[in-house]
Amino acid sequence: EAEEAAAAGEANTKPISTILIVMAMHTEAAPLVSKFKLVEDPDRSMFPKGVPWVRYRGKYKDLDINLVWPGKDPNFGVDSVGTVSASLVTYASIQAFNPDLVIDAGTAGGFRAKGASVGDVYLASAVAFHDRRIPIPVFDLYGIGAKQTFSCPNILKELNLKVGNLSTGDSLDMSPHDETAILANEATLKDMEGAAVAYVADLLSVPAIFVKAVTDIVDGEKPTAEEFLQNLVLVTAALDQAVTQVVDFISGKCISDL
Amino acid sequence: EAEEAAAAGEANTKPISTILIVMAMHTEAAPLVSKFKLVEDPDRSMFPKGVPWVRYRGKYKDLDINLVWPGKDPNFGVDSVGTVSASLVTYASIQAFNPDLVIDAGTAGGFRAKGASVGDVYLASAVAFHDRRIPIPVFDLYGIGAKQTFSCPNILKELNLKVGNLSTGDSLDMSPHDETAILANEATLKDMEGAAVAYVADLLSVPAIFVKAVTDIVDGEKPTAEEFLQNLVLVTAALDQAVTQVVDFISGKCISDL
Repeated sequence: EAEEAAAAGEANTKPISTILIVMAMHTEAAPLVSKFKLVEDPDRSMFPKGVPWVRYRGKYKDLDINLVWPGKDPNFGVDSVGTVSASLVTYASIQAFNPDLVIDAGTAGGFRAKGASVGDVYLASAVAFHDRRIPIPVFDLYGIGAKQTFSCPNILKELNLKVGNLSTGDSLDMSPHDETAILANEATLKDMEGAAVAYVADLLSVPAIFVKAVTDIVDGEKPTAEEFLQNLVLVTAALDQAVTQVVDFISGKCISDL
Repeated sequence: EAEEAAAAGEANTKPISTILIVMAMHTEAAPLVSKFKLVEDPDRSMFPKGVPWVRYRGKYKDLDINLVWPGKDPNFGVDSVGTVSASLVTYASIQAFNPDLVIDAGTAGGFRAKGASVGDVYLASAVAFHDRRIPIPVFDLYGIGAKQTFSCPNILKELNLKVGNLSTGDSLDMSPHDETAILANEATLKDMEGAAVAYVADLLSVPAIFVKAVTDIVDGEKPTAEEFLQNLVLVTAALDQAVTQVVDFISGKCISDL
């Protein structure tokens, strides 16, 4: 125990050297791959045969960057979005790359009633699930899985990011049951991966932060799917700019400096 | 490719030697652990530090049995039910134990309208998700993720198991949106893990079967949570008897004999 605490203390005061960026969609990832001059792992040897997961790697300033994306579903050919794929690729990547920090970066729906507008970029202050209803005492809390994210007061002081709670579920739309849970989660943002990435990072004791850009207004007039697709490319530019600023800030710092 | 096909063919005509049984709850797993005289892996060295996953192992007849259970949630102390935990522990266990066959065994809700009664034990013929609504073409099909399970005509001929489709979601209750999707999935059974275990087994090319015992009638009068808790222990006995019969049948057989 004392050794572990000492090791953890040392890790917190050593400059961050390896980061893992998890992204759900290729469209979101492509500009960052280019920006950080990352290259795709040619032999995919870090992951087992059969999984579609893609790793891009490279050195940016003093950081080893691993950017992973769950890839195209082998049966359907679309991006492997959602909590199951995100948790698996996060788990396998933490095991393989032993990162000092996980950055879950992606797009999200935003709630106008909570102050969100299309193009806003947030650092999530807490995450929770909104589609895991288990009405048995304590199981209910496990299902929601609410947790504070790793606190980054200095990133927030330095960068122009908004702050709000993120609620995660496997549907792009929002049912009345989802809406009730999202309200209970006091969420400003709604995505399909965040709380799952947080769950895995927490299990494996790696600090994780969540950079989410708003592609659509959930409590607005436009249908989510349409607005999401319309704004995806444009908002991805804002997301990638914010992630770059976060990575620039991280470079040379320790976990305890964030 | 030719080598792979040859290797696959060889695997199918070699007796099954290693099986992985995945179970979501300790109450479901305990009688089988005792029945097969399995012992808990003392040092948990097959899984990374921090995860609550529990592996029981043992030799039963000519089979190496690995029974895994995602364990108690470190924060809440309840069984780590649901798709995220199930997919992670299935992934890590397939990597670690290289099984010839995965058996997902557990309890489920059943639909009276489809002929299910409390205590019935099913072998699922197909699995799908009912809470991953993504209303964008092709993404919608990916979300549902319907797939036929590994076909076992000889198990069905030999054992007294019912057959039906299994629909998976992360909630114990059933919202109207869930109900619509479950109907579209033509499901007789509703659980919280099956389609996620199927997804992982499929990615890693391991045949998987799904033995599910009915604890509660979803389209009946009693509230699901109450009926589930009332029947859990009793129905677990039926489940464990069926799993034992399946394992006895498997012993000495090849994958292609199932």
